[in-house]
Amino acid sequence: MFRHPLLQNSKGDRGTGPRIVIINEEVMKLLKQLCEIHAPSGEEHTLKEFLLKYIAKEKKNWKVKPEIIYGEEFQDCILLKFGKPRTAIFAHMDSIGFTVRYQNQLLPIGSPDAEPGTRLMGRDSKGLIECELEYDKENHAFYRFGRVIDRGTSLTYKINFKDTKSYIQSAYLDNRLGVYNALMVAQTLKDGVIAFSCWEEHGGGSVPYLAKHIHEQWNIRQALISDITWVSGGVESGKGVVISLRDRNIPRKKFVNRIIEIVQKKKLDFQLEVEGMGSSDGRELQLSPYPFDWCFVGAPQQHAHTPHEKVHKSDVKSMITLYEHLMKGL
Amino acid sequence: MFRHPLLQNSKGDRGTGPRIVIINEEVMKLLKQLCEIHAPSGEEHTLKEFLLKYIAKEKKNWKVKPEIIYGEEFQDCILLKFGKPRTAIFAHMDSIGFTVRYQNQLLPIGSPDAEPGTRLMGRDSKGLIECELEYDKENHAFYRFGRVIDRGTSLTYKINFKDTKSYIQSAYLDNRLGVYNALMVAQTLKDGVIAFSCWEEHGGGSVPYLAKHIHEQWNIRQALISDITWVSGGVESGKGVVISLRDRNIPRKKFVNRIIEIVQKKKLDFQLEVEGMGSSDGRELQLSPYPFDWCFVGAPQQHAHTPHEKVHKSDVKSMITLYEHLMKGL
Amino acid sequence: MFRHPLLQNSKGDRGTGPRIVIINEEVMKLLKQLCEIHAPSGEEHTLKEFLLKYIAKEKKNWKVKPEIIYGEEFQDCILLKFGKPRTAIFAHMDSIGFTVRYQNQLLPIGSPDAEPGTRLMGRDSKGLIECELEYDKENHAFYRFGRVIDRGTSLTYKINFKDTKSYIQSAYLDNRLGVYNALMVAQTLKDGVIAFSCWEEHGGGSVPYLAKHIHEQWNIRQALISDITWVSGGVESGKGVVISLRDRNIPRKKFVNRIIEIVQKKKLDFQLEVEGMGSSDGRELQLSPYPFDWCFVGAPQQHAHTPHEKVHKSDVKSMITLYEHLMKGL
Repeated sequence: MFRHPLLQNSKGDRGTGPRIVIINEEVMKLLKQLCEIHAPSGEEHTLKEFLLKYIAKEKKNWKVKPEIIYGEEFQDCILLKFGKPRTAIFAHMDSIGFTVRYQNQLLPIGSPDAEPGTRLMGRDSKGLIECELEYDKENHAFYRFGRVIDRGTSLTYKINFKDTKSYIQSAYLDNRLGVYNALMVAQTLKDGVIAFSCWEEHGGGSVPYLAKHIHEQWNIRQALISDITWVSGGVESGKGVVISLRDRNIPRKKFVNRIIEIVQKKKLDFQLEVEGMGSSDGRELQLSPYPFDWCFVGAPQQHAHTPHEKVHKSDVKSMITLYEHLMKGL
Repeated sequence: MFRHPLLQNSKGDRGTGPRIVIINEEVMKLLKQLCEIHAPSGEEHTLKEFLLKYIAKEKKNWKVKPEIIYGEEFQDCILLKFGKPRTAIFAHMDSIGFTVRYQNQLLPIGSPDAEPGTRLMGRDSKGLIECELEYDKENHAFYRFGRVIDRGTSLTYKINFKDTKSYIQSAYLDNRLGVYNALMVAQTLKDGVIAFSCWEEHGGGSVPYLAKHIHEQWNIRQALISDITWVSGGVESGKGVVISLRDRNIPRKKFVNRIIEIVQKKKLDFQLEVEGMGSSDGRELQLSPYPFDWCFVGAPQQHAHTPHEKVHKSDVKSMITLYEHLMKGL
Repeated sequence: MFRHPLLQNSKGDRGTGPRIVIINEEVMKLLKQLCEIHAPSGEEHTLKEFLLKYIAKEKKNWKVKPEIIYGEEFQDCILLKFGKPRTAIFAHMDSIGFTVRYQNQLLPIGSPDAEPGTRLMGRDSKGLIECELEYDKENHAFYRFGRVIDRGTSLTYKINFKDTKSYIQSAYLDNRLGVYNALMVAQTLKDGVIAFSCWEEHGGGSVPYLAKHIHEQWNIRQALISDITWVSGGVESGKGVVISLRDRNIPRKKFVNRIIEIVQKKKLDFQLEVEGMGSSDGRELQLSPYPFDWCFVGAPQQHAHTPHEKVHKSDVKSMITLYEHLMKGL
């Protein structure tokens, strides 16, 4: 019954083999829309509203209609509960950016990495803003604009979305691609939870109560982190989704091994990552007062946290396919 | 019915306009007492005892008699519950200071900032201590005293409380002024919680269980952090209480915007702060497994964490007035 | 009724005086076994299995048969509940080590401190590994081995266990000695909890849910951290177990004072530590949403986190004796 234009299942009611994930123009349109939404850490409500509308419209095409859980008790987060869940997918909605301080100073939201001259967008009491990023000699960030911008206004990169034969390039693929992955997986998901989280780029703060709800209500202890990682000395573009064995945090080896067994059995493409730095929503699950096992599983990108994040299309397909299998096999 | 000597309401049963907060000698006496109590992080019990006695004596003059919650289940914290609360005020009781190590070494409690020669006070098994702070060439802190001080003894600044026409100057206005603000707001508070917390200056540890109690028992998700901030490039002495749009942590923008709307409507004086460093009890609310919205609202000071913290009296008045309005409006 | 070969009670059913703890060959055998188990942070399941077998075999000799709590809800942790507990002992099972990255790179697990040439042990899909630690000029760690090691494989120090007249020397006395202490205390424990925890060396993650269970199920608010500390300017080998007044975190003074009163009354040997750095499972108890009082109590060692950790035998005896008294007195 799966008939969603964005992803086409090549096998009808597929068996155990991977379905062929097709990335077409409509897919790109959705991903571009997601990237263009201004939602830095603390202002995820815009993306929340978009997702609620999208889900309301699309869920009729999904195999299982999820329970949709949101509201002030969840701040700007959304939980989708499908069937009898055993595993939760966490996809953070927020992006990095800047906050306007005094004079024309800017403070980072998360860890942006942009060259001088980068175009920044926002809105304050006087209207829309498109300004330019500058640095002084001590590498402090400033904006250049025709007028003073209200204190506390957030600015995000202007989106220049590029869709080439093999690559997608845009600001905020981290983590709109992780959100997109979750939406694609939702189409065929029978049993599972999808959690759209907040503040991941700036110290966290929503995963603790999401974990509490997910564990206390549905007794879930397994989580996959749908997020974007780095091309590195051991991880290449186009070689498949990344299963991260560790970053700054170390997930329980037993759980990570189960994931590897599943994907090896299915002969899916993947790459193994081993990092000492970086973290994700997995960190907050690790530290929560609930015994969550977690693993970061996501496409690698070049130019992380710049306006030019670049991901190979085959890695996006690989990510969606792997998630579909893991949500069944775990 | 409000007849408390410390603060005089100029309008009887006031309407929506701000009452005139008067800072007189009795006010100064209470604030001086609060500053003089030795209660560095981990030793808040002294201030707890003082507050319990003060509250027992004064609550007869308060509009609403709060439920007073304390005991070993709350370590050295105190919760006051007024009416049907929607918002909690957090005021940390602890101060920065030093711990005596070996030889005549001192380790910081929190981040003290004091010149050599500063007088430090404490008490160990041999009696009262008044010693002098010294530094070696590598900027390690030491004490100079006629005898060895017991290991683990805590030392705090000797108080030199100055009350001039426009300013209050003393060690530990951070955060005895935040505690004082909460006590003043208590006089007229109908619905709300006041939480006196511990360890804020040294990594925290009490807000998580306070947040748990406040949320689970009374379903509260809103918090104001009654604490002291800095005069900076964008925040001046005497220009009104500070509403902080962010520090190291970023509160949810939607909540902060509601606060600004309320105070703008009431035409109250305030200043907006935007910082990239520093944190408060708000950090622990942000990271707790409860969906708290929070905002730091407090007077700015000069010479933070020195023995000479200095706050403009009009900013203290502005802080109390703002809290009164916010606890009604939120 | 206490008849365990590892520790001999000199007084039968002892009164208030300390029993004489004897460290003999069998004791050394157990401790050596514990040290030799490969269980870096994230892979504690090996030590968990050893402990479950050991406890199943030995508990018949214990004064009180504890309830043994473990399973997926507790990941790789174990809880032992004796009688009507008032205090919990936390002993972390994990050790520091290295993770194999790409090429022949190694990433630290926790903070290992080893010279070039150190022998490292592990196992991957191709079998057992014994390789050699190297560093480049920028102090990055590498392995030297005849073949490529699987990504994500963990390596730990090869054990060279030395038992001399006065000292024990081995890698991983931190914290297999803390685990050992808990097992010795278990022999005579009437009322208490023993928690074997995970991930202590690498950011934590199990203490939050252990604390939740211990507090919610048994209303416990007191904890002792059975772990190993450092010989320092104020702490010597052979002068007795260390009671730590603070490290990076500051426990509540009132609780620490109660501990000192008990051990002074019993005239037990101990040393007081005051540190500004370092932390333990106590940090996670401090930050948990449960009002735990905690204190680090453990033997001091030389050469921490090297393959040559060295502890004076009399300090081990002192540690066990102190724990026995504290678990009764608190």
